[in-house]
Amino acid sequence: MILVTRRYRFSASHRLHAIPLSDEENGRLYGKCNNPFGHGHNYEVEISVRGPLDARSGQAVNRGALDALVGEVLQAFDRRNLNAEIPEFQTIVPTSENLGRELWRRLEQKWHGAFPSGWPALEKIRIAETARNIFEVVAQNV
Amino acid sequence: MILVTRRYRFSASHRLHAIPLSDEENGRLYGKCNNPFGHGHNYEVEISVRGPLDARSGQAVNRGALDALVGEVLQAFDRRNLNAEIPEFQTIVPTSENLGRELWRRLEQKWHGAFPSGWPALEKIRIAETARNIFEVVAQNV
Amino acid sequence: MILVTRRYRFSASHRLHAIPLSDEENGRLYGKCNNPFGHGHNYEVEISVRGPLDARSGQAVNRGALDALVGEVLQAFDRRNLNAEIPEFQTIVPTSENLGRELWRRLEQKWHGAFPSGWPALEKIRIAETARNIFEVVAQNV
Amino acid sequence: MILVTRRYRFSASHRLHAIPLSDEENGRLYGKCNNPFGHGHNYEVEISVRGPLDARSGQAVNRGALDALVGEVLQAFDRRNLNAEIPEFQTIVPTSENLGRELWRRLEQKWHGAFPSGWPALEKIRIAETARNIFEVVAQNV
Amino acid sequence: MILVTRRYRFSASHRLHAIPLSDEENGRLYGKCNNPFGHGHNYEVEISVRGPLDARSGQAVNRGALDALVGEVLQAFDRRNLNAEIPEFQTIVPTSENLGRELWRRLEQKWHGAFPSGWPALEKIRIAETARNIFEVVAQNV
Amino acid sequence: MILVTRRYRFSASHRLHAIPLSDEENGRLYGKCNNPFGHGHNYEVEISVRGPLDARSGQAVNRGALDALVGEVLQAFDRRNLNAEIPEFQTIVPTSENLGRELWRRLEQKWHGAFPSGWPALEKIRIAETARNIFEVVAQNV
Repeated sequence: MILVTRRYRFSASHRLHAIPLSDEENGRLYGKCNNPFGHGHNYEVEISVRGPLDARSGQAVNRGALDALVGEVLQAFDRRNLNAEIPEFQTIVPTSENLGRELWRRLEQKWHGAFPSGWPALEKIRIAETARNIFEVVAQNV
Repeated sequence: MILVTRRYRFSASHRLHAIPLSDEENGRLYGKCNNPFGHGHNYEVEISVRGPLDARSGQAVNRGALDALVGEVLQAFDRRNLNAEIPEFQTIVPTSENLGRELWRRLEQKWHGAFPSGWPALEKIRIAETARNIFEVVAQNV
Repeated sequence: MILVTRRYRFSASHRLHAIPLSDEENGRLYGKCNNPFGHGHNYEVEISVRGPLDARSGQAVNRGALDALVGEVLQAFDRRNLNAEIPEFQTIVPTSENLGRELWRRLEQKWHGAFPSGWPALEKIRIAETARNIFEVVAQNV
Repeated sequence: MILVTRRYRFSASHRLHAIPLSDEENGRLYGKCNNPFGHGHNYEVEISVRGPLDARSGQAVNRGALDALVGEVLQAFDRRNLNAEIPEFQTIVPTSENLGRELWRRLEQKWHGAFPSGWPALEKIRIAETARNIFEVVAQNV
Repeated sequence: MILVTRRYRFSASHRLHAIPLSDEENGRLYGKCNNPFGHGHNYEVEISVRGPLDARSGQAVNRGALDALVGEVLQAFDRRNLNAEIPEFQTIVPTSENLGRELWRRLEQKWHGAFPSGWPALEKIRIAETARNIFEVVAQNV
Repeated sequence: MILVTRRYRFSASHRLHAIPLSDEENGRLYGKCNNPFGHGHNYEVEISVRGPLDARSGQAVNRGALDALVGEVLQAFDRRNLNAEIPEFQTIVPTSENLGRELWRRLEQKWHGAFPSGWPALEKIRIAETARNIFEVVAQNV
């Protein structure tokens, strides 16, 4: 078993604001990230997959297939306003925790189409929202 | 003469859209960055100053004074929507080129108050909008 | 379950010298790091916590609470001489292995006060002493 | 138990070409990396070991012994053509997956000589072939 | 005037061997880099251009035009053996110094076609061959 | 003319304390860096040299000669206490500004011995004391 990770980037804007909370609670919880006009980030996304080594190709994943799949998913987020343009974030808050889960859900939906053998398996999604804030969703925790 | 550089970060959203251009021209010029809902970045800002070495302190700039000045200027941009919340970007496009010039203008206005001796001099503002796009405004070119 | 990591930095000096060993043994074991006058590092510390996603806030950890806790612990180390100023390192060697365990001990002592619900849990402390030397203490191994 | 990671670098060239496949299949599978004249990379290798803390030295691994061992193994790869100069890659493809396994095999062969106590244990080999492609071999998967 | 820098990457192999020198002299001069089978690197290339700010677009360079031009030039080098596949390096040594000059020559040939107004000007090519070795060719020195 | 930069690292401790100033002035000027027990950093040093391209070797500097020279100078600083072990810093403050000038002085003294032809010329010394603080001494300013 080998773990293979590929790194991708996209840029987007968001506003952290939880609908069920009052404005005052939102301000206390999210601070400057609650700014009604929004702000943004360069998101660095690492997709890690785990699989057996294919003896002929010497690879644990077909890079072209993985890039095509991830690229298709991420293009819906690049240069977008997450609150306004991603339907799921109209009711839930576009924190990087929720973003990680949404990326997982979208990748998983298309996984079988891209990798019909079942291998490799999606192992981890790591999102660096800034150089200081890093979020990981891992297989056994979804 | 020594050159001293300090690195700062802020996160903001923007939309690239030039008012005098048609929608079609804007789309062609800025591509995905013209998205009407905006997107965002983690901006890494390096401020470089140049000055003589003070023999007693062994320093070319008082770090505390520089940090206070730059911090005061950058806090107006952090977690903000540049188009909606920075008055200057309601008429001009918030590209990183224009952002660099606006930061220069704001730093220069307060420079004499922070450094009454005239030293150090503001030498360069370098903005990394993403890991691939870097913009520099330098003293002789302002 | 989500893993959230935040990155912090501090700078300190230390000397690697084990009291029970002879000077010759210390020299052989630690080489240049046994220099009696000490030397120092920029320590990069990553604190990883693991917790369930709070449905309302979309977060697995309150960033403000984590930063306050870690900041309070790390300020005792920043711009300090670890051997002379950290009581625990007057009898044990301030290697990064021991530093990681000491940070863990101090964070754990205050954890319940900062996170009374028990979530998130402290999962990992990662210390990069230099760009080449990295040390990790993880939950199940403490 | 502490995890200690040290980072090393080497530069090498390789060509991805699987002998049992036709030229057309090789081209489809490896794309530009199948170029018959080869190409190359700066490989960044992280070796992670896991072990109990030695109470006297405050260390989980003797850095000198680890560096000597890894340095001896890696010097066979630095500034080399992997296909032409590493015997194992004359029959299998020098992908980073296979490279990770070959490094593991070579380290393991000499491990007992370098660490007769059995500690630390080799835990993980991580190879970054480029800034975007990362490969990991971990202990339980070998 | 603004300086705009964009960062690109390619991977290639090379061998440092000067035809007019004896084998012994080549070995002494280039050390392991003279290995007859070659080795390789991930080259990080920064292209810096300098130009006046266009008031309407707020830009000093059209990113699309620059990327198209640089991409066309760099694709001849990516996943290539510099000695065998770049005609100019069959007689001169593919050091990063010579590589920088060759990139400059190729960019300059197509510059007028890409930027008929004469702006921006090519200001600097910076090649990082490894994390430790950096080479720059600048406008006034060509 | 080509500019070649090589990157080196060393770790050291220091205390910022100016002898002619009172304790109170020192505290105000240097803050936590005035701590009497000292602290330390990983210093990243970039040495940039400028020279004509040698047509035969395709190089602007002999890397081996530069590494030998810089290595000899830097080994006096690595794993040292700058105040206690570098004679020049017993009377002047070991700020990175002064460190840059001291490195320049020591390199210049041995330059002619290492490069008798006069080429390359020492162009710039850049010291990153932390990821946020960068200091440069350049040729025309010494």
